[in-house]
Amino acid sequence: MGIVRQHIDRAPKDLIARLGAAGVATVHESQGRTGLMGAQMRPIQQDVSFAGSAVTISAAPGDNWMLHVAIEQLQEGDIMVLAPTSPCDMGYFGDLLATSAMARGCRALVIDAGVRDTRDLRAMGFYVWSTAISAQGCIKETVGSVNVPVVCAGAVVNPGDVIVADDDGVCVVPRANAETVMTAAQKRLDAEEAKRQRFASGELGLDIYDMRGRLAEKGLRYE
Amino acid sequence: MGIVRQHIDRAPKDLIARLGAAGVATVHESQGRTGLMGAQMRPIQQDVSFAGSAVTISAAPGDNWMLHVAIEQLQEGDIMVLAPTSPCDMGYFGDLLATSAMARGCRALVIDAGVRDTRDLRAMGFYVWSTAISAQGCIKETVGSVNVPVVCAGAVVNPGDVIVADDDGVCVVPRANAETVMTAAQKRLDAEEAKRQRFASGELGLDIYDMRGRLAEKGLRYE
Amino acid sequence: MGIVRQHIDRAPKDLIARLGAAGVATVHESQGRTGLMGAQMRPIQQDVSFAGSAVTISAAPGDNWMLHVAIEQLQEGDIMVLAPTSPCDMGYFGDLLATSAMARGCRALVIDAGVRDTRDLRAMGFYVWSTAISAQGCIKETVGSVNVPVVCAGAVVNPGDVIVADDDGVCVVPRANAETVMTAAQKRLDAEEAKRQRFASGELGLDIYDMRGRLAEKGLRYE
Amino acid sequence: MGIVRQHIDRAPKDLIARLGAAGVATVHESQGRTGLMGAQMRPIQQDVSFAGSAVTISAAPGDNWMLHVAIEQLQEGDIMVLAPTSPCDMGYFGDLLATSAMARGCRALVIDAGVRDTRDLRAMGFYVWSTAISAQGCIKETVGSVNVPVVCAGAVVNPGDVIVADDDGVCVVPRANAETVMTAAQKRLDAEEAKRQRFASGELGLDIYDMRGRLAEKGLRYE
Amino acid sequence: MGIVRQHIDRAPKDLIARLGAAGVATVHESQGRTGLMGAQMRPIQQDVSFAGSAVTISAAPGDNWMLHVAIEQLQEGDIMVLAPTSPCDMGYFGDLLATSAMARGCRALVIDAGVRDTRDLRAMGFYVWSTAISAQGCIKETVGSVNVPVVCAGAVVNPGDVIVADDDGVCVVPRANAETVMTAAQKRLDAEEAKRQRFASGELGLDIYDMRGRLAEKGLRYE
Amino acid sequence: MGIVRQHIDRAPKDLIARLGAAGVATVHESQGRTGLMGAQMRPIQQDVSFAGSAVTISAAPGDNWMLHVAIEQLQEGDIMVLAPTSPCDMGYFGDLLATSAMARGCRALVIDAGVRDTRDLRAMGFYVWSTAISAQGCIKETVGSVNVPVVCAGAVVNPGDVIVADDDGVCVVPRANAETVMTAAQKRLDAEEAKRQRFASGELGLDIYDMRGRLAEKGLRYE
Repeated sequence: MGIVRQHIDRAPKDLIARLGAAGVATVHESQGRTGLMGAQMRPIQQDVSFAGSAVTISAAPGDNWMLHVAIEQLQEGDIMVLAPTSPCDMGYFGDLLATSAMARGCRALVIDAGVRDTRDLRAMGFYVWSTAISAQGCIKETVGSVNVPVVCAGAVVNPGDVIVADDDGVCVVPRANAETVMTAAQKRLDAEEAKRQRFASGELGLDIYDMRGRLAEKGLRYE
Repeated sequence: MGIVRQHIDRAPKDLIARLGAAGVATVHESQGRTGLMGAQMRPIQQDVSFAGSAVTISAAPGDNWMLHVAIEQLQEGDIMVLAPTSPCDMGYFGDLLATSAMARGCRALVIDAGVRDTRDLRAMGFYVWSTAISAQGCIKETVGSVNVPVVCAGAVVNPGDVIVADDDGVCVVPRANAETVMTAAQKRLDAEEAKRQRFASGELGLDIYDMRGRLAEKGLRYE
Repeated sequence: MGIVRQHIDRAPKDLIARLGAAGVATVHESQGRTGLMGAQMRPIQQDVSFAGSAVTISAAPGDNWMLHVAIEQLQEGDIMVLAPTSPCDMGYFGDLLATSAMARGCRALVIDAGVRDTRDLRAMGFYVWSTAISAQGCIKETVGSVNVPVVCAGAVVNPGDVIVADDDGVCVVPRANAETVMTAAQKRLDAEEAKRQRFASGELGLDIYDMRGRLAEKGLRYE
Repeated sequence: MGIVRQHIDRAPKDLIARLGAAGVATVHESQGRTGLMGAQMRPIQQDVSFAGSAVTISAAPGDNWMLHVAIEQLQEGDIMVLAPTSPCDMGYFGDLLATSAMARGCRALVIDAGVRDTRDLRAMGFYVWSTAISAQGCIKETVGSVNVPVVCAGAVVNPGDVIVADDDGVCVVPRANAETVMTAAQKRLDAEEAKRQRFASGELGLDIYDMRGRLAEKGLRYE
Repeated sequence: MGIVRQHIDRAPKDLIARLGAAGVATVHESQGRTGLMGAQMRPIQQDVSFAGSAVTISAAPGDNWMLHVAIEQLQEGDIMVLAPTSPCDMGYFGDLLATSAMARGCRALVIDAGVRDTRDLRAMGFYVWSTAISAQGCIKETVGSVNVPVVCAGAVVNPGDVIVADDDGVCVVPRANAETVMTAAQKRLDAEEAKRQRFASGELGLDIYDMRGRLAEKGLRYE
Repeated sequence: MGIVRQHIDRAPKDLIARLGAAGVATVHESQGRTGLMGAQMRPIQQDVSFAGSAVTISAAPGDNWMLHVAIEQLQEGDIMVLAPTSPCDMGYFGDLLATSAMARGCRALVIDAGVRDTRDLRAMGFYVWSTAISAQGCIKETVGSVNVPVVCAGAVVNPGDVIVADDDGVCVVPRANAETVMTAAQKRLDAEEAKRQRFASGELGLDIYDMRGRLAEKGLRYE
């Protein structure tokens, strides 16, 4: 019953890089606060930001067979996104699979399940966002799918979507919206830079955003 | 309905610093094992200890408006303590608000909710203890209060209380008790130093604390 | 009612060291995927691997008296394994007890409960895997046992078993199986090294493991 | 930014009723084990099965305004499916909204958040599957959408999909598949009835499914 | 170090009864959405509402000694509120203690920990709201306090406060506010009754609350 | 690699029945507070007590094949105890398997995983204690074992042990201890009955257990 879609569209590389540099919080705001994965999705490394094109994987619980299938579909700059078809915290992925993925130019994984060999993965510079860490290995018995829509940590991911991930979590940008979202993000970044300087010089948000009147109206009282 | 208390009493700066140096575990023991926040309150940075005077914030779930109001009330050395009025893991606080708080001499936040821009916050040297990390932004619609008593991660915090926070968690010292607690903490630190040397030299707790008799009495049997 | 078994058998030191070097994931696979503690058991330090002989401790919830009793039983290279008789996240262990344990040549603890002084423990080079971090101290009222079988984070541990622990979690190797498990682990490590090179050179798991036929048989379809 | 789609297609009433009678476990199996919401989605009543056409609601966290908007869109036999745009356990729904929904022929709600007045809801015969129970009320400040695709407890729901819910949880059947799924479910039900009689008469699954050979092949050994 | 306050003020009995009849959701709304315990506080029985005067108990984790002390302080209509000084899910309370409490006219307990003998408690008509159910018994070694302020499931409770509890959870009404809160609650109940009839007759919240204009203003679009 | 032990020893039927009547809390106390499963193990029915001889099942995560194997080993009065080899909340068991088990005189299951068809199971009078409810089905690919020692919800269970289960949870009595434990339990029940009458008549635990002196000694102060 599984299928592998071999041809998917991807967003332009430089656009993806710019979304990665903007970061999860800014990108999430810039697309109307949509596409954020749940807070249980955490990085195994610190102070790393990444963006890539999603190669999606739908896998049976405790079965990592489809990762081998998916790796053949990877291109330079892709990020794997694996969602089990039922909750599972087993270790789907370790250093051997990472070696294979890196040989194809992929250096990141987002997985709504567990990974292992986390120390090796950090040493290799392979980035992971996962919902668990577990040495418990998987079987290879059930066929799943590659490059079909999946729900990962509560967010819908279509193959080719741009995945932005950093210390704050993971956000999905639908491929078709990537340009528009980046334009909004850039405006936001520029505005934030200006505001940052005003904040740094001691100006208050109360004045920068002109909040005092509305607060009084809503009944805020100073004592 | 919200209120802002503009004048609160604070403990002396050097007393606060000494409580911070004593650390959470010692301070907590020294005030009769009270005031500890729940274990879900975790630092976003490692190997940092801090103590400051609490500026408390009661905010609606998903609404970070009152942080702007609170920042105006901050003095050098304060620590913000935010408790939502209902459980919430959204990201109330990020690098812009941190910039504003730092401009007023505040460099730490304790929050029973989420924060974002965690990598930037670490880079800025702004310290955070939170119960969640999330890029999900807040709205600014509901008025809350500043410098009222709050319950944060299960602990009561009054404005001006001394907050001690490190890798072990967060402990609240009521302002009026700060001197007494520090006196007890100092005794404890001195006693611990003496014991540490005995332990390091190979003496056993069984002997240092004279436990063997009482253990036998309670029925402990060696085989 | 408590007992202390003073004489336990341990595996040979070099065998323990080799199991530690093999790591949790490999060891767990090599003994038929048994003996893994639950994923809630996490290290307080990063990028550390350790293996040692288990000195087990069964303790009442919130009562750390038996740690003092256990420390007398420690030998160079041992690792303490503490399981409370009912779930508890209080801080059983801190820097003083670590100083005492290190004086006897023990530098690691696995505990299905909380620890404190985590920053100091990291600085001392004392390793901990725990299910909680908490400054909340314990009492010393109830007698437990040392070197009896315990269930720790879902895994059975007998005194003298080899405990392997790293960033992926903790695995228990029954002492009597240690040699056999290491033999299997070594084969696995050798095979993995060969595979790693093939993966690194760009060969696919689909071909290395000859999976294509079986995938087609099970109905995988390429589009 | 919110939208309300006023015209959605629904599956035939009798088909929906048959899916409801088949139950969650059977329906889930019959569509290839897809569409199941997470196990955190629990009924507030016992021994009730229900099926209906989804009217979907995307709402801001802690904001139940869109429920009023959605109720106008309800038809006899519909079931509301509410997904907040970020995790929230506040009480979005109580007896007044239930009264309003029932006046339009709707008697069930699936909500990835909290409800209140649960005793009254049970007394009224209004059915709820929720991820929380909480008296904490919501605000009405942010516009969301009605009848757009949502992700609810990890499952994608499109407006007009058939929702099947009972004591085991909640399963989503895409409207276009409802007929096919019911055909498969009926075959399954018929086969199960036959098997139930064989099981009841004492025949073993080992024999009914002819498992003994394959078990022996895989190495099962009787002692 | 423990204290027992023997004389506490209580609200009038009929006022307490009226607050109980109003229920948790209404009372919580009527005092400005404050005083609600966390959603982890759940009843062991169904379809029961209760209100009483709080006799508070601060107890060490795993130590139920103070329940015996507290029972002596009970008066007809009181409800015990127990908060451990550190998180604990052990069974503090069972049928013997319930028998003793009922002999003094108390028939309810709110406890941020575990209870046991739940079937017997239901049969006896003794009501419990707890955060756990556990057969694990407690010790009697550490002195705590009775009738001091406690934090229970995130809410501050002072002795003599009115506790309102039903299937939705538990809400604390400060004794001094009980009259005012009930007046507000009564208005709310009257208004709700009127609205319930309009809802039942098919009127929409959109019209009853005149929401259409504001929704359009905020950008809601019908398709 | 799996094995099935076909001959196990069981405790006498009437002894098992008496342990069941004593209930989980009493039995747990009577064997020194050991053998209790974790509080996450909950019944799917209410007000049912049961005791039986354990037929244990060790199964791969998400794989329920061994249940068919186990059912052949069942005798009248047995209770199945299933522990997955890694955490799993999938639905291992439903009405068909229950029908098969009941045909062999078994009417109860304890499972550290999920079950489905819960409404049917209640209607059939088949009792279940589980850590999850889920319609998600299992596969039948990996061989496990029957009647080997397992760890279920944190408790060690050997085949033939007596399992006592009621609304408070599940407790394991090692077969060899059953007689002794029941003797202690009977003493406890007799003593409790006497105390219950004294409590019911208004006597206080403070006096029945003569606690006042020791409380004063430990510093309890009445105000």
